[in-house]
Amino acid sequence: MPVIDPATAPRGEGSRYPAPFDAPCRARHWLKLGDAAGLTQFGVNLVTLPPGTWSSQRHWHAHEDEFVWVLEGEVVLVTDAGEQRLRAGDSAGFKAGSRDGHCLQNRSQAAVQLLVVGSRNDADYGEYPDIDLKYLPGRYSGGGGYVHKDGTPY
Amino acid sequence: MPVIDPATAPRGEGSRYPAPFDAPCRARHWLKLGDAAGLTQFGVNLVTLPPGTWSSQRHWHAHEDEFVWVLEGEVVLVTDAGEQRLRAGDSAGFKAGSRDGHCLQNRSQAAVQLLVVGSRNDADYGEYPDIDLKYLPGRYSGGGGYVHKDGTPY
Repeated sequence: MPVIDPATAPRGEGSRYPAPFDAPCRARHWLKLGDAAGLTQFGVNLVTLPPGTWSSQRHWHAHEDEFVWVLEGEVVLVTDAGEQRLRAGDSAGFKAGSRDGHCLQNRSQAAVQLLVVGSRNDADYGEYPDIDLKYLPGRYSGGGGYVHKDGTPY
Repeated sequence: MPVIDPATAPRGEGSRYPAPFDAPCRARHWLKLGDAAGLTQFGVNLVTLPPGTWSSQRHWHAHEDEFVWVLEGEVVLVTDAGEQRLRAGDSAGFKAGSRDGHCLQNRSQAAVQLLVVGSRNDADYGEYPDIDLKYLPGRYSGGGGYVHKDGTPY
């Protein structure tokens, strides 16, 4: 059935960033709605950010478009342009190849819920402008992974 | 800026279905949020269905995944399995190649708001199981269009 049951949708939580970069993201958790419906061309995750939690470290994607819709709460979007507050009903899009890194930080006292959509391209790679971290192509085929910006492994 | 301004996002409305199939869809309208952010790998539309309006005729996609999140109101999903009511916070996914046609009908007295995501693949084509209609590949490159199921044009 195409209707997605949140009770049985696959779940994710935490962060695979090497320490200490995982710290602000450890409490995040999400339902993999797209996976639950068998979709493969893009991912749709229902992401919960408890107070104090970030969606990610600030990053950009070389080959994947990304879209975020705020369902609940207030979150701070950080980009090269600075900071902007997004609330329920606000949305943002991040075009593949744009090297303006972004992340969403919940600095409030209440949980934030986001719907996050991203295309899936095994050739995708990206960088984290604020920290010594980048990720390699191949994360959907068993490769990928995080390395220092000079390419040495963590 | 990646934040999407609904006031300046491109808009769409109505239906290009040949008459009389356009009738239940004529009052639909939408904001092209993904286009507003310059995204090209998938579309994200904020769709409004006034009372009595359908999202589409019942259809399936050969090569495009589709995802729907109900933001507001109550809508009836029609598939081969029958009818299901979806309310705010419910979602559904329609996998490329699954020939179980779907549409969303607003049979209520209040407007329905949906977030609709679909991948973009110029090779996509599809059919409408309940009516003598199919659509041809090429709709992102200036081709495509609706024809009878035997291939003759409308």
